[in-house]
Amino acid sequence: MNNFDFYNPTQILFGQGQIAALSRLVPAGARVLMLYGGGSIKQNGVYEQVRQALQGHAVLEFAGIEPNPTYETLMRAVALVKAEKIDFLLAVGGGSVIDGTKFVAAAAKYDGADPWDILAIGGKVVKDALPFGSVLTLPATGSEMNSAAVVTRAATLEKRAFMSRAVYPKFSILDPQVTYTLPVRQVGNGVVDAFVHVMEQYMTYPADAPVQDRFAEGLLLTLIEEGPKALAEPDNYAVRANVMWSATLALNGLIGVGVPQDWATHMVGHELTALYNLDHAQTLAIVLPGMLRVRKDAKRAKLLQYAARVWGLNAGPEDIRIEAAITRTQDFFEQMGVKTRLSDYGLNRDSVDAVIQALVQHQLTALGEHHDVDAAASRAALELCL
Amino acid sequence: MNNFDFYNPTQILFGQGQIAALSRLVPAGARVLMLYGGGSIKQNGVYEQVRQALQGHAVLEFAGIEPNPTYETLMRAVALVKAEKIDFLLAVGGGSVIDGTKFVAAAAKYDGADPWDILAIGGKVVKDALPFGSVLTLPATGSEMNSAAVVTRAATLEKRAFMSRAVYPKFSILDPQVTYTLPVRQVGNGVVDAFVHVMEQYMTYPADAPVQDRFAEGLLLTLIEEGPKALAEPDNYAVRANVMWSATLALNGLIGVGVPQDWATHMVGHELTALYNLDHAQTLAIVLPGMLRVRKDAKRAKLLQYAARVWGLNAGPEDIRIEAAITRTQDFFEQMGVKTRLSDYGLNRDSVDAVIQALVQHQLTALGEHHDVDAAASRAALELCL
Repeated sequence: MNNFDFYNPTQILFGQGQIAALSRLVPAGARVLMLYGGGSIKQNGVYEQVRQALQGHAVLEFAGIEPNPTYETLMRAVALVKAEKIDFLLAVGGGSVIDGTKFVAAAAKYDGADPWDILAIGGKVVKDALPFGSVLTLPATGSEMNSAAVVTRAATLEKRAFMSRAVYPKFSILDPQVTYTLPVRQVGNGVVDAFVHVMEQYMTYPADAPVQDRFAEGLLLTLIEEGPKALAEPDNYAVRANVMWSATLALNGLIGVGVPQDWATHMVGHELTALYNLDHAQTLAIVLPGMLRVRKDAKRAKLLQYAARVWGLNAGPEDIRIEAAITRTQDFFEQMGVKTRLSDYGLNRDSVDAVIQALVQHQLTALGEHHDVDAAASRAALELCL
Repeated sequence: MNNFDFYNPTQILFGQGQIAALSRLVPAGARVLMLYGGGSIKQNGVYEQVRQALQGHAVLEFAGIEPNPTYETLMRAVALVKAEKIDFLLAVGGGSVIDGTKFVAAAAKYDGADPWDILAIGGKVVKDALPFGSVLTLPATGSEMNSAAVVTRAATLEKRAFMSRAVYPKFSILDPQVTYTLPVRQVGNGVVDAFVHVMEQYMTYPADAPVQDRFAEGLLLTLIEEGPKALAEPDNYAVRANVMWSATLALNGLIGVGVPQDWATHMVGHELTALYNLDHAQTLAIVLPGMLRVRKDAKRAKLLQYAARVWGLNAGPEDIRIEAAITRTQDFFEQMGVKTRLSDYGLNRDSVDAVIQALVQHQLTALGEHHDVDAAASRAALELCL
């Protein structure tokens, strides 16, 4: 196990009816800005529950944070925060809204000349941030219990991440009931997103870390069991609860402590989203299987462990077991309604060229746990996904 | 899954050489009281490392916190804290030292007439506490990353616990190397203690919480694998690291969220320690197997799951599988050098009478996840352990 520094102070209020706890969680006397997305919270009752719980608080609203939130939109929220002397933010939505709120929280307190630094240079320039909480409506990204955010600059199609311990949510409210009405596409995307988050931290090489391995496998097994049930039985509380908690634990830092991490699939996927506006989870479902096949030798020991412990594939030649495990993974993504080939989204060899060009331009040519995923390896992975 | 409220802000610095980080973790300018036990830290080099890292800080010391720390001893530390205007505590030791430090932290800020209230009434009377960190020397209790403490009043042999979010350590340093020189008895005790902590949160009844189940099983499997290796290869870093991290995760709150919990074994075990001064882990190793046998029917579904997933016992009649799993558990404790019968410690039927009398006197006659472990059930469990 490698040395590590783990810290995660986000309070999680989990379960039915927990949105009412906002009345005590949001500091009395705070000037609150509630941030949300395209308005689905007004259809599913979450908006009403939140406003009800916040009666007696001074609350302004900022709507319209888009999927893959843009720097341009978020800077308008920063201007509002400053103009209205806001001192507490409340994100109500999925990963995009929470990621966007993290950027707003950091940018509102940033004293450098250009807030884009937070994304261009990284979280180390963040010294302080406005406090904020979240009400999660879409289990997927884990943003509700971590210190990372991804923001896209619309003007240049650059998708950038930052991390800072200043932007852990003070609290996040996870009520599985609010996910009953999610569109099928978002449920499928969320499960695939969580699954690949686990894989990025697990599918590397053995590092004498059996607890981290078993926690990761526990999340994968649970997502495989519960994900399809979430599609089949949308208002099964237990299923929704297990998917929601799994997605949070998939990226709250715990399973990744002390072990090597990969993230090549995410880096290549980000370029696909920036260029072609695919959903984040769609890009992961496309790229991961190819990446695993291309890097089979470096990942052999963990691929065999994954085949055995997650898919029950214990017998037969190693290469057959590995290929079967990758195929099962791909089938699972398809079962969740997320297509796994570039052609499913109207993309082709030209798109591969464009993605590789973007990776080179962004100097993303030494990816993965061994920093050996160069442009050729990314190309090979994508060509397996045509 | 039941509703829950999870919060754990303790920062964990894990790995070799991390004690040096004290120089930045302890606030500059703080008046620090370093609390420790019987002086083993002066033999194993930890004392020197800590003092070295704290050069430039104002540090006083309080030595002599005993195993099963006593209220009487801790109140002397509280007096020193007040007299010397201490504003940061540093626990250097195992669970007893850290538990004791939690009580000192809370009692130093307690404004009621009698600090025993903190233990008699419970953590709800704790409004504030001195900040403190820990350097862990003995993986066992999980106190380094939770908000609970157990303290014994020597005068009355009462062993009482309190919990309060005010007493999470600000940080805990876990360097597996400092455990190389632990006596065999403490290594065995630590592994058994961690194992039973997991069992108290896992071995109840199914609650639609597959992630919590799998995390618990992952810890049990790891302790079973790594525990005996820690005895056989005392300076195997990876083994020590995995035992240490497992013991922390066994009781940092995570595996217990949203699920029923038992703790009957602990309650009965506490009386054994109070009456006969057995090590905490010894009492757990004695009581757990009997408790599981007595409560076999209420725990049947989880006992079968435990038999299958932890011990690989999948075939044959249910009762045979369950008995085999309990026997394996008992054998594992013995393998760790912790005896599992009252007679191994010179105790007999008279001791059972005394324990039951103490349980009745302390109104601990509705224990367990169903509150149905009455005096008769505790007696039956103990009689199976003679």
